[in-house]
Amino acid sequence: MGSSKVADKHRVVIIGGGFGGLSAAKRLKHAPVQVTLIDRCNYHLFQPLLYQVATGALSPANIAAPLRNVLKNHRNTKVLLAEATRIDAAGRRVILSDGEIPYDTLIVATGASHQYFGHDAWEKFAPGLKTVEDATDMRRRILLAFEAAERERDPAKCAAWMTFIVVGAGPTGVELAGALGEIAHDTLKHDFRNINPSQASILLVEAADRVLPPYPPPLSAAARKMLARLGVTIRTGATVMNIEDGAVTIREGERTETIPTRTILWAAGVLASPLGRMLAQEAGATLDRVGRVVVEPDLTIPGHPEIFVIGDLSNFSHQTGKPLPGVAQPAIQAGRYVAKTIERRLRVEKIEPFHYVDKGNLATIGRAAAVADLGWLRLSGLAAWMIWLFVHLLYIVQFQNRLLVLMQWAWLYFTRDRSARLITGKNPLPLDL
Amino acid sequence: MGSSKVADKHRVVIIGGGFGGLSAAKRLKHAPVQVTLIDRCNYHLFQPLLYQVATGALSPANIAAPLRNVLKNHRNTKVLLAEATRIDAAGRRVILSDGEIPYDTLIVATGASHQYFGHDAWEKFAPGLKTVEDATDMRRRILLAFEAAERERDPAKCAAWMTFIVVGAGPTGVELAGALGEIAHDTLKHDFRNINPSQASILLVEAADRVLPPYPPPLSAAARKMLARLGVTIRTGATVMNIEDGAVTIREGERTETIPTRTILWAAGVLASPLGRMLAQEAGATLDRVGRVVVEPDLTIPGHPEIFVIGDLSNFSHQTGKPLPGVAQPAIQAGRYVAKTIERRLRVEKIEPFHYVDKGNLATIGRAAAVADLGWLRLSGLAAWMIWLFVHLLYIVQFQNRLLVLMQWAWLYFTRDRSARLITGKNPLPLDL
Repeated sequence: MGSSKVADKHRVVIIGGGFGGLSAAKRLKHAPVQVTLIDRCNYHLFQPLLYQVATGALSPANIAAPLRNVLKNHRNTKVLLAEATRIDAAGRRVILSDGEIPYDTLIVATGASHQYFGHDAWEKFAPGLKTVEDATDMRRRILLAFEAAERERDPAKCAAWMTFIVVGAGPTGVELAGALGEIAHDTLKHDFRNINPSQASILLVEAADRVLPPYPPPLSAAARKMLARLGVTIRTGATVMNIEDGAVTIREGERTETIPTRTILWAAGVLASPLGRMLAQEAGATLDRVGRVVVEPDLTIPGHPEIFVIGDLSNFSHQTGKPLPGVAQPAIQAGRYVAKTIERRLRVEKIEPFHYVDKGNLATIGRAAAVADLGWLRLSGLAAWMIWLFVHLLYIVQFQNRLLVLMQWAWLYFTRDRSARLITGKNPLPLDL
Repeated sequence: MGSSKVADKHRVVIIGGGFGGLSAAKRLKHAPVQVTLIDRCNYHLFQPLLYQVATGALSPANIAAPLRNVLKNHRNTKVLLAEATRIDAAGRRVILSDGEIPYDTLIVATGASHQYFGHDAWEKFAPGLKTVEDATDMRRRILLAFEAAERERDPAKCAAWMTFIVVGAGPTGVELAGALGEIAHDTLKHDFRNINPSQASILLVEAADRVLPPYPPPLSAAARKMLARLGVTIRTGATVMNIEDGAVTIREGERTETIPTRTILWAAGVLASPLGRMLAQEAGATLDRVGRVVVEPDLTIPGHPEIFVIGDLSNFSHQTGKPLPGVAQPAIQAGRYVAKTIERRLRVEKIEPFHYVDKGNLATIGRAAAVADLGWLRLSGLAAWMIWLFVHLLYIVQFQNRLLVLMQWAWLYFTRDRSARLITGKNPLPLDL
């Protein structure tokens, strides 16, 4: 009797354990449904702090919460370490690389990764930052560049090792460039004997006419000042024309310049997850220019009220005429809305369209500096940084990690020492001098 | 004048930034010498806690201190990220994979790795634990085994995923088996829906007739009891005959048994670093059965008073007739002795032979349990664990890491939660079901 009742329960399958998928799963804890959360990773990643792993301030485990652990008291929820390869919308099942799973309601929340605007060959020289492996690879490249510069006797080659180029001045690019400035000027100050790390050249290249383009202009100007103070050279209105082994070519107006560099970090261009294309093929969904799925006011796709698309994979333009930004808040709110909608449907209650409440935007620029756009209040400097710090600590999923992150930030603040400066992965020797 | 004085300074080259090499470098801070410390890694690794990274209790950065950071205030010391491939004893220079470096005095401290007693094919199925990469690979295998068991429908295959075999019951094997017991019984208790992690079978296989063979028999008996309490099955007097994909064959007396398992952890067999063979070829050094360099009472090699060999790579048998154990204390004391000897030689003072002071041995067996053999005092249980905890915290090189480790241990003690449970590295999907 009990087991047949369980088998009859409405089956909700969630693909993706990021901010959107996890918030939907959490909100469904007491709903009369059976939840299966599928992810390729065994952890939820707190992506806003990934740049701190890439720059040696935090360890991967500090920003990654095991999904099973987060959901262990959700007795109606299963976590599945698996990769969804196809969505059979007609048959209502998700095809995995090693099995399949049927659903009554599907929530697709597989996010986005970076893109190179058709220049996929650039990826090898200019890695992006979306996964833990990306972050440890970036950390490795940054630290190895200083090691190689210390060993290199040829001044021109040494200068190329000491040149760091960040492409894209959105929040990630600004945060990376700011952290690089701190590494060069503070963290590594006394570490080397042949080079002076503070002479490193850190370039932030942005095609728009200002840094942090989605922010109000006064905050962009404030961010520019803070970056300059950290020794970051800003090149706005500059387009990347080519990236090859050892050099980046940029164009500013009529002028084209090729800059020798051994470290290029990519923080531009977003491309939605390939499951979007799957939904276009199998369920007739419409995609936008970067592959996001255009959704209805209730976050479903036309003709498929049983399929929700949320987070960075979704294009919800009903509220402002523009898609919601690809940050944590829209995904979290959409996840909660979808969970509530599923419950209301089961109770045959009225369903309101999704309404996003913009709580504002925050970006940090090194030590004790940030910009905050709360809509009703715009702040920069220490006050914005305090808000940034508080909000980020609050949203880290596990309590232990909140303490560990706070402790490491306090340490970083007072000593400017980044302890997670490990070069890990494949043997880096001999150095490519 | 100043620069010619520097150029004339006695050049000390240290290969290896482990306990031996680092303690020599630290002790030479104020000596009138030029020190170069060469290591393949950019960090000093606190190897005694590596098993805690392998079992998800700590992050790699918590037990790794960047060598440049540790030695940043040693103005007479350079750190070189490089691999020593050859020692030219006649020409007094170390050949690197990307250069060379001359020395007046050489300290070789490159340690040891694990060996498979001629069965190198076993390594693929039974990885050892010597590097950060080994530890994250072991963590990945342990966590993926539970994930695969959760997915596997075939009971026999599921049982093989739920069987963990640790080969070798020295301190590392005992500590790994104890931590596995805790993971199965406590950490993962509520994480799965199809399997019960506490039904995992954890086997500790040892050829000798008791666990912790170098310890006094009463402490071995105590360790055995503590391991049994954690659900570890102990097979002493058992020899590993074969390891293949999915199974281990062991022999106990006349009886041979093949045990299906998907996770085999190797904690047996030590093999000295290949630089020992180099010293045999180039400087006529004598090696013992496991490749260690037999050293004189002053830790030099015969005929080469300018070459010291210390730590796990050295066989110093003058004190007890047996080589010193391959743990941190003999390496640290030898490093300090060599530094002092170099200073005394420069001052043309009398040199005493090396004398090792045995401060005792400690091994931990899970939560609040350990054995301690301090020579004059033998302890097991909580008291031994308190000593273990205090000593290990004390010897962690960086103050920040001491705090981070203490905090994570306190968390582990009270909640039994291991937060660093990330499956990282190459894409693990599809699972090998």
